[in-house]
Amino acid sequence: MSSWRGSAVWVRIIVVSGTDFEFDTATAVKPLGDGEFSGLVDAGWTVGDKPNGGYLLGLIARACGEALAEADRAHQDPLAATAHYLRAPDIGPVRVRCAVLRTGRGASQVRAELSQDSRVCVDATFTMGSLAADPPAPYWTARELIDVAPYDECQRLPAARDGSPFVVPIMDRTDLRLDPAVLGFARGEPSGDANLRGWISFADGRPADPLGLLFFCDALPPATFELVLSGWVPTLSLTVYVRARPAPGPLRVTQSAHSIDDGRVDETCEVWDSSGRLVAQATQLAGIRIAE
Amino acid sequence: MSSWRGSAVWVRIIVVSGTDFEFDTATAVKPLGDGEFSGLVDAGWTVGDKPNGGYLLGLIARACGEALAEADRAHQDPLAATAHYLRAPDIGPVRVRCAVLRTGRGASQVRAELSQDSRVCVDATFTMGSLAADPPAPYWTARELIDVAPYDECQRLPAARDGSPFVVPIMDRTDLRLDPAVLGFARGEPSGDANLRGWISFADGRPADPLGLLFFCDALPPATFELVLSGWVPTLSLTVYVRARPAPGPLRVTQSAHSIDDGRVDETCEVWDSSGRLVAQATQLAGIRIAE
Repeated sequence: MSSWRGSAVWVRIIVVSGTDFEFDTATAVKPLGDGEFSGLVDAGWTVGDKPNGGYLLGLIARACGEALAEADRAHQDPLAATAHYLRAPDIGPVRVRCAVLRTGRGASQVRAELSQDSRVCVDATFTMGSLAADPPAPYWTARELIDVAPYDECQRLPAARDGSPFVVPIMDRTDLRLDPAVLGFARGEPSGDANLRGWISFADGRPADPLGLLFFCDALPPATFELVLSGWVPTLSLTVYVRARPAPGPLRVTQSAHSIDDGRVDETCEVWDSSGRLVAQATQLAGIRIAE
Repeated sequence: MSSWRGSAVWVRIIVVSGTDFEFDTATAVKPLGDGEFSGLVDAGWTVGDKPNGGYLLGLIARACGEALAEADRAHQDPLAATAHYLRAPDIGPVRVRCAVLRTGRGASQVRAELSQDSRVCVDATFTMGSLAADPPAPYWTARELIDVAPYDECQRLPAARDGSPFVVPIMDRTDLRLDPAVLGFARGEPSGDANLRGWISFADGRPADPLGLLFFCDALPPATFELVLSGWVPTLSLTVYVRARPAPGPLRVTQSAHSIDDGRVDETCEVWDSSGRLVAQATQLAGIRIAE
């Protein structure tokens, strides 16, 4: 084990864990040495009784940032992250084993496995770097800021709603306000357009940051809810690119499904900050079982 | 090592390796036991002197299919694949180490590392399955078939062209015909619209299949060539979803860039078969250095 004890790294760990923000508490990891970390899957970051995939990705990314700090690289921000979800861990203790694949000047790569009872639950790989606190404007973009109803006209999605077969505890921790135009599914009247949009932030006021963006990119209901009655839509593979550190304020978010073929659906998610900048993009492939 | 010798798996390896198709020869792998395979990075599947990322992904996927066959799972088709590119291997021998993470009835997950001289060059994770030979129509899609000029009006991209700083040998092996409307970059007159489209197939007539789609999803020039003068655009992370086994015939393909921010660009690629079905989708994050 490297000599991280007593170093700036250890101070940072204490500071971050010391916040009262629920996301920070639920993604806290403790070093066990040799790139291994312990964590606790929290009951509050679940959909039904399964942990949310973006939350798990945030927890793993945090361990990878610590592993890089142990390797003397201050690359705490995920730039590109992909997770393959093998089996859902239960609420409770997990281990994250990180292997630093390459350290570079501008970016480093880390592979990680989240396991429970010695069974791998999530396999993930990250390109990690350091995003500027106050970044200059993007060089070029073809992505226009999405058109979404004003914040106050959007409706916050509750954790429990009539007609839903299960409670979604992450909605108590996420302030997700959907555009009224895409809330047909909540009334049992799906619009037929697999495109959700709204505003997102942490319910307890925690600022959005690159780790939070990993979660936000998997926090919306499946866009297919506006299309077809189905059971839950379990993520097989999730990829997130974090493009910039977001400016303060609620984020605009959109989630769209594109094709349902052979029991699988692909969805994309895009997140813009209050300055109108595209700060995160995600794509996922998920299983879907259409109700007859 | 499991008893694959003399089994159907071995027969299959011989049959596949026995084709004269260049892609099959260049992605051939030999089992070394314990999930490890040897392969040869071929000089023909390069851009400049660097192997193409989609070609490497195809080679790794083939090793993963063999690793699953050794584990008695006939899951030879990549459904979701993500590779993080750490360093480009040189032309010559490489090793692929596969770890089967989970075997399931409909899909299995495998993680793999491609290394050269004991240094990891590519880290990849796959969800593997078995795609139907003659699949029923998709349940639903929002992706309209792209509008591309007729095959005969498109222009085949050569391996060497005036003004290009390097030769692109994959273009001798790929029959990539671009729509004349997106060939401004080849005349030194980029259109300003970072969107390429055309037709793609193997030059030697090898049928497109799920492994070939992995390559096709990274075979186009960077869409940013139509936007801005830059050096090569090295892929950091590539994710491909294979949605269906393609029907025979040339494939329609489109590649688009969406945002250039902080020295990185994201691009998506979509591939449709002759029946009009979306058969593959990819997203990648790449580094980009804008020429002054």
